[in-house]
Amino acid sequence: MTNASVSFAPAVSAPATPTLLPTGLRDALPPEAEHQAACVADLLRGFAAEGYERVEPPLVEFEDSLLADADTSVARQTFRLMDPVSQRMMGVRPDITIQVARIATSRLAHRPRPLRLAYAGDVLRVKGNQLQPQRQFTQVGVELIGAASVAADVEVIRCALDGLSRLGVAGLTVDLTVAALVPQLFDLYGLPTAQRATVRDALDRKDGAAAAEQAGPLADLLTGLLAATGPARAALMLLTSLDLPDAVQPLRRDLTEVAEALLHQVPQVGLTVDPIEGRGFEYHTGVGFTLFARQVRGELGRGGRYQAGVDPVEASTGVTLFMDAILPAVPVPAPRQRLFLPAGTPVDVGRSARADGWVTIAGLDPKEAAETSAKRLNCQAIYRDGQIVELKERA
Amino acid sequence: MTNASVSFAPAVSAPATPTLLPTGLRDALPPEAEHQAACVADLLRGFAAEGYERVEPPLVEFEDSLLADADTSVARQTFRLMDPVSQRMMGVRPDITIQVARIATSRLAHRPRPLRLAYAGDVLRVKGNQLQPQRQFTQVGVELIGAASVAADVEVIRCALDGLSRLGVAGLTVDLTVAALVPQLFDLYGLPTAQRATVRDALDRKDGAAAAEQAGPLADLLTGLLAATGPARAALMLLTSLDLPDAVQPLRRDLTEVAEALLHQVPQVGLTVDPIEGRGFEYHTGVGFTLFARQVRGELGRGGRYQAGVDPVEASTGVTLFMDAILPAVPVPAPRQRLFLPAGTPVDVGRSARADGWVTIAGLDPKEAAETSAKRLNCQAIYRDGQIVELKERA
Repeated sequence: MTNASVSFAPAVSAPATPTLLPTGLRDALPPEAEHQAACVADLLRGFAAEGYERVEPPLVEFEDSLLADADTSVARQTFRLMDPVSQRMMGVRPDITIQVARIATSRLAHRPRPLRLAYAGDVLRVKGNQLQPQRQFTQVGVELIGAASVAADVEVIRCALDGLSRLGVAGLTVDLTVAALVPQLFDLYGLPTAQRATVRDALDRKDGAAAAEQAGPLADLLTGLLAATGPARAALMLLTSLDLPDAVQPLRRDLTEVAEALLHQVPQVGLTVDPIEGRGFEYHTGVGFTLFARQVRGELGRGGRYQAGVDPVEASTGVTLFMDAILPAVPVPAPRQRLFLPAGTPVDVGRSARADGWVTIAGLDPKEAAETSAKRLNCQAIYRDGQIVELKERA
Repeated sequence: MTNASVSFAPAVSAPATPTLLPTGLRDALPPEAEHQAACVADLLRGFAAEGYERVEPPLVEFEDSLLADADTSVARQTFRLMDPVSQRMMGVRPDITIQVARIATSRLAHRPRPLRLAYAGDVLRVKGNQLQPQRQFTQVGVELIGAASVAADVEVIRCALDGLSRLGVAGLTVDLTVAALVPQLFDLYGLPTAQRATVRDALDRKDGAAAAEQAGPLADLLTGLLAATGPARAALMLLTSLDLPDAVQPLRRDLTEVAEALLHQVPQVGLTVDPIEGRGFEYHTGVGFTLFARQVRGELGRGGRYQAGVDPVEASTGVTLFMDAILPAVPVPAPRQRLFLPAGTPVDVGRSARADGWVTIAGLDPKEAAETSAKRLNCQAIYRDGQIVELKERA
């Protein structure tokens, strides 16, 4: 008797303040909920057509696997639950990427590489903030596991852009970064630890003078990198002219090659580069990226290259799309036409009308006049005397 | 900077036992995850075509609204979380019906009745049991709010059956019940409280002799009701012949009328009635039902008539479908054909192949022989010299 062991009571007495949900949590109502589901399905359909197969990890896991190697800000944003079965702590996922990488490197370790996986689901976070008060998000994404090439980075970025374009999001732009560059330069030039935070902070504010002041022998290079920021063609030219140490040449080469491929493959998309940006990319080992649209506040998605698994480590690239930011930029389709079927209409009439694309609304009360019911229920047509008759606004 | 305040680290080191999820929680892998999503989408598409509009309540709510009037077994099955924002307890939903009824009677109180709502989502429960070890389920359902008629009950049951048929579930059966009948008889005949549990227990075991022994003046009636159980036509005839008190005539009438309408509208579906069944229907005020398929262990879904809201109370009918029980009964579609695009294939070739229905798999490594890559990645065709060429199993 599946699900029958506990009787879940549909009887509901609304509490005193029935609409009061916790801050940052909300109900999606019609037509928004359907719109979001349709957009998510459309994105996944596109990813599936490029070989990204869907996985669906659980909402909660043991915290040690959910937060494996995650930084402390992630751990702080994770709701904990005591598992009465194992007596161990579980966490409600604050992100899905980590779960997908776990699946790829464990249960799907035997599958040939590169492995393409897709996902969609909700995540929960302990607190919102002023810019982003929501605490539950829908995330959609892909991970391309076991391919260490520029082609992999480009595929993931283009896939995400194609998906957003298909939804109708206009004015797409991509910002490329290589978060590992600055820390590697700090190491190569032996910048004292005490100064690193100050310089990093100045770079984050794009304050070149303050950064140079504290950066010692790195001053010129950092000033040059700060200048090599902005629209891709000009910035790449400046970046190419910089005299970078050999050790970081691969990062510059990857950034340049990814940018050039995108300029070629998706010429309609605005492309910027920012070789010093690092915030939110702390774990990225190669090219990272953020997706924007000109009319939308905030990021539509982000991703980049990272290492999945241990022994073996697998070079991987992924992207996460944030549906709450994307949805306002997607045109909502016109509502479908509704046909009222007066009480007692044979079921086959309804089946046939639905096959023709109608939304049918069945009358349940034979005592109410059919046309009154139809208008009250927002129908544009009514089934009468064996025919579908359009309803006039004012009869 | 949407979502940017916290950097969610995609860097993952698999923990020591990476596949060890908590008991009752699992990863859905390819192709299962996509199959489930497609089935859910198909069900919701069918419901939408009959006017059921989707809502999406949050995963967690304050426990007092989530568990409003829920019985203690529901409360015991609910994971609790402390909300650091409000310092109040929240619960992870163990069921979605209660949330949808909350939405209907609060935020959508202004919408005309009857109100048709649909939902799909995951629920979490504290513990599984031997028969049902899972602790996370996907539920899909509809609620028809504000219609107190047999036509409403029939619509919801038929909608669910049509949805399951469309998925390809064969051998569907419905078991109808009226859980309020026996308690009302207990009251009408003044059965002492002490005996009620014993009688109820005997009825649940279908032990007529034991029930009659303790039921005093109700003995004959309960024996008659026990006999009126089974395939609908014969059982309804027996039920009609019973001399029931006037107060419970409406329950018998509703059960009979729902059964007759289903025999007429979905004649291919097996129909049984069980007028004494009450387990899992404690809150149902009229006809309740359970959906089965002949080849499937356990229930595919259940639902029935209940009261939503307070002041005003709204007569409502709903159904919940259990995807974990349904999926094994749904034929899995054949996998789509995969076309390998050697590294460097122009992006437009891929776009055009996907528009023709291919799943394209892009080669990322120009050093690997294209045909080797294609076979390794399970492709049935390869793009070569401007053409799509089928790959032989053994070239």
